[in-house]
Amino acid sequence: MSVRSPWITKTAIHHVDEPFKLESGRVLPELHISYEIYGRMNKNRTNIILVCHALTGDAHLAGYYDGARKPGWWDVIVGPNKTLDTQQYCIICSNVLGGCAGTTGPASINPESGREYAATFPVITIGDMVRAQHLLLRHLQVSQLCAVIGGSMGGMQALDWAVRYPDMVSKLILLATTARSTPQQIAFHAIGRRAIQGDSRWNKGEYYGKERPDRGLSVARMIGHITYLSDHAMEEKFGREVKNKEQEPYALNADFQVESYLDYQGNQFCERFDPNSYLYITKAVDLFDLTKNGCLVEGLAPITARTLAVGISSDWLYPPQQVREIVKALRMSGTDAEYAEITSRYGHDAFLLEMGQLDYLISGFLSPKLVSDIMLQPVSSIKEDDTIEKACQVMVENTASHLPVLNKSGKISGIVTSWDIAKAVAYNFKTLDEIITRNVRTISPDDTIQEAALRMKKHDISALVVSRDEKLLGIVTSEGVSGSMRVNC
Amino acid sequence: MSVRSPWITKTAIHHVDEPFKLESGRVLPELHISYEIYGRMNKNRTNIILVCHALTGDAHLAGYYDGARKPGWWDVIVGPNKTLDTQQYCIICSNVLGGCAGTTGPASINPESGREYAATFPVITIGDMVRAQHLLLRHLQVSQLCAVIGGSMGGMQALDWAVRYPDMVSKLILLATTARSTPQQIAFHAIGRRAIQGDSRWNKGEYYGKERPDRGLSVARMIGHITYLSDHAMEEKFGREVKNKEQEPYALNADFQVESYLDYQGNQFCERFDPNSYLYITKAVDLFDLTKNGCLVEGLAPITARTLAVGISSDWLYPPQQVREIVKALRMSGTDAEYAEITSRYGHDAFLLEMGQLDYLISGFLSPKLVSDIMLQPVSSIKEDDTIEKACQVMVENTASHLPVLNKSGKISGIVTSWDIAKAVAYNFKTLDEIITRNVRTISPDDTIQEAALRMKKHDISALVVSRDEKLLGIVTSEGVSGSMRVNC
Repeated sequence: MSVRSPWITKTAIHHVDEPFKLESGRVLPELHISYEIYGRMNKNRTNIILVCHALTGDAHLAGYYDGARKPGWWDVIVGPNKTLDTQQYCIICSNVLGGCAGTTGPASINPESGREYAATFPVITIGDMVRAQHLLLRHLQVSQLCAVIGGSMGGMQALDWAVRYPDMVSKLILLATTARSTPQQIAFHAIGRRAIQGDSRWNKGEYYGKERPDRGLSVARMIGHITYLSDHAMEEKFGREVKNKEQEPYALNADFQVESYLDYQGNQFCERFDPNSYLYITKAVDLFDLTKNGCLVEGLAPITARTLAVGISSDWLYPPQQVREIVKALRMSGTDAEYAEITSRYGHDAFLLEMGQLDYLISGFLSPKLVSDIMLQPVSSIKEDDTIEKACQVMVENTASHLPVLNKSGKISGIVTSWDIAKAVAYNFKTLDEIITRNVRTISPDDTIQEAALRMKKHDISALVVSRDEKLLGIVTSEGVSGSMRVNC
Repeated sequence: MSVRSPWITKTAIHHVDEPFKLESGRVLPELHISYEIYGRMNKNRTNIILVCHALTGDAHLAGYYDGARKPGWWDVIVGPNKTLDTQQYCIICSNVLGGCAGTTGPASINPESGREYAATFPVITIGDMVRAQHLLLRHLQVSQLCAVIGGSMGGMQALDWAVRYPDMVSKLILLATTARSTPQQIAFHAIGRRAIQGDSRWNKGEYYGKERPDRGLSVARMIGHITYLSDHAMEEKFGREVKNKEQEPYALNADFQVESYLDYQGNQFCERFDPNSYLYITKAVDLFDLTKNGCLVEGLAPITARTLAVGISSDWLYPPQQVREIVKALRMSGTDAEYAEITSRYGHDAFLLEMGQLDYLISGFLSPKLVSDIMLQPVSSIKEDDTIEKACQVMVENTASHLPVLNKSGKISGIVTSWDIAKAVAYNFKTLDEIITRNVRTISPDDTIQEAALRMKKHDISALVVSRDEKLLGIVTSEGVSGSMRVNC
């Protein structure tokens, strides 16, 4: 047990004893879904975050398995008082379908044959992985997700979640991912598959209980590993150092440090990963394409979740541009999406490493910090030539105490409050014009909640109109500000 | 024979019947060097260009082998009236040491054992390749190279040429290359080697006459191929098209176009390349490092050749930055080096494809177009307080008819010509000051030769001082300008 963290976590398994129909049309007779849960669900189950893992990741997000030396893969941001604070949120992560960490995959026993599926396992998709996770959440009686978060292949699942189950996903956080695998990404995977299938020990997938095609898997992993690191990160990590300085440099098998490192990574990987799973999961990633009729805007249109998409400056596997395209497509559908970039020299792997920037971006997105996070919208409004009576009707119908007044070009020309109505009655004013407050206090949606609070206090008012370029966007009230101190997905 | 080009080329072989000592200290008992020559050597052998080929290239630069359908690999710029005009230049390209196209390599018979070298072949370096080429040139009685040109691994050889034999290389053209293999570049090669050596048919290199480790070689080639293309080029070429639109998309072996393409490339490559050569040549590239004591400026200091180094905007294997570093290092040693960039979306392979930009850059560099190309230097000068007698001595000693006059801070303050001397004599002037022309006509080394000709004509003078920031750099004469119309490396 590590001294650093005594936090022990365990894996649970959910057994679905029903046929599971895949996107391909093929059917798995049963499903096992293994998962881990960190933190506790609150009474109304409104504090749940789903984390989707990447290609070679697993459900073991954080903490330590009993006796383990290494913590889970996202321990830097998941845990008590960390970015994904397990004292506040309940975090769920399940092993993907097709994998080899407890959820049904090619190494599982096919109940119909009593033997491993091996290469008879059906091709699966990212959508199938998501649908299996959905079954798990139903079993856990979770109907609303505060947020779905994922990086790399995890980001693909998260994106698919928000398209497939828009009503369940309040917020979506995507890291270093794409909405559609590109030929270069496919090519790297294809070569990994060729290396595995070209290993004579692969034996058409029938190697269970025999020697495994570890040489092929190791080559596949080495290829993957290069794509996860930036050129610069490798330079910094290895330079041109040789493994053993006493060795003869002019030998074919004399290794530079970078070679020994890749060999080590390749061998380590063979100890924990099933070669057939590598074939199936990379294929699922290659098949991933959320465009619809060739159009990403159309494909992502079902998404309603507020979205934060994060690119990594030095990522050349899923370059920032591909992350930006997701944001552009969402915005074209009117979905609230923002792009942020992690400045890092680590390459793709930065989403596992850049703790500080991850914390800043994810915390800021999950906890409302800006006026746009708490403003009420749509907001009722009235026109300059409306009557006082009309204003009162709108107020009552919408239980709104503050009504922005718009001029003929739709711009904010004033505000009328229930208190103004009272004034009109008191002084027997007959027209709206006599009671409108022309000096409207506005705030930008990009301002902080602190700024909104200060401005209300300064002018001794209980609400601010949220506007940009004199256009009405919403309203923010003192109730909203004080309420924002609570967790609020 | 192709209809497109009836230009038939042939390979010759030079046999060196002497031991060849390698950088490792090991010795090859004999050498065969195969090569091709395009165009004719002129009388003084001053029109010779050496082209160095890349990793999987060969000596067959251009034209067609009898009966072949495809021309040589650089046919776009090598040939009659092309960029490297074979009517003007004599172009030599030899197959690299360690390769499998006629020059001694692991598939050659070791005269000492009577069998293929296979894995007993010694590790070779880029420097060894260059030294073998040097033996060939000596055999061909070539002592001066108008230019050495190479892209990728060819660029490494070219750079090594200019360091190793500075007196032989007048101009150096480097394309998409580096002065030092980086860990990322090494890693890609290392994985290719693992794939070959991990193929059970590799049999520790002893596969000649048996089944070859083509699966491994094919994987290695596929990895290489991805690194030669940009993400964008792959997107444009393949998109997410599948190979056979009628095929079941949810099959593990259902291929995207990009996969079939890579398979095809992998298989094609196996027909023409020896797996052991791939091991040795990639190792030579990995060992390439021209820094000296960790310093590139020091490593490249011997170079005297005027250098053009060309990066490719979308090349991520040998990114522009690495090409720029060569230029920076050369300039720090005072070597005349310039950087240019090919704007291309093809990635690394652009140096084989971007005919127009290659032509513009290479032609412009080989044919003198600028004042700096034809200016005379070092140029003799005198000081303001020198005597007329002293000026005459300097003129006579240096057969110079124009002498720039420098003030105490070394800046040009005037010019004295032989005609001024005549004037002094005629009018009995006693001091230099009385005959100096203060209004010196100067020109920048970056100006064109046309500009120099125009300026001389305008002022009716026969020479211009070449200067930058009032510092004397050289002198350009009307003879130089008219002579620049000739081929002049």
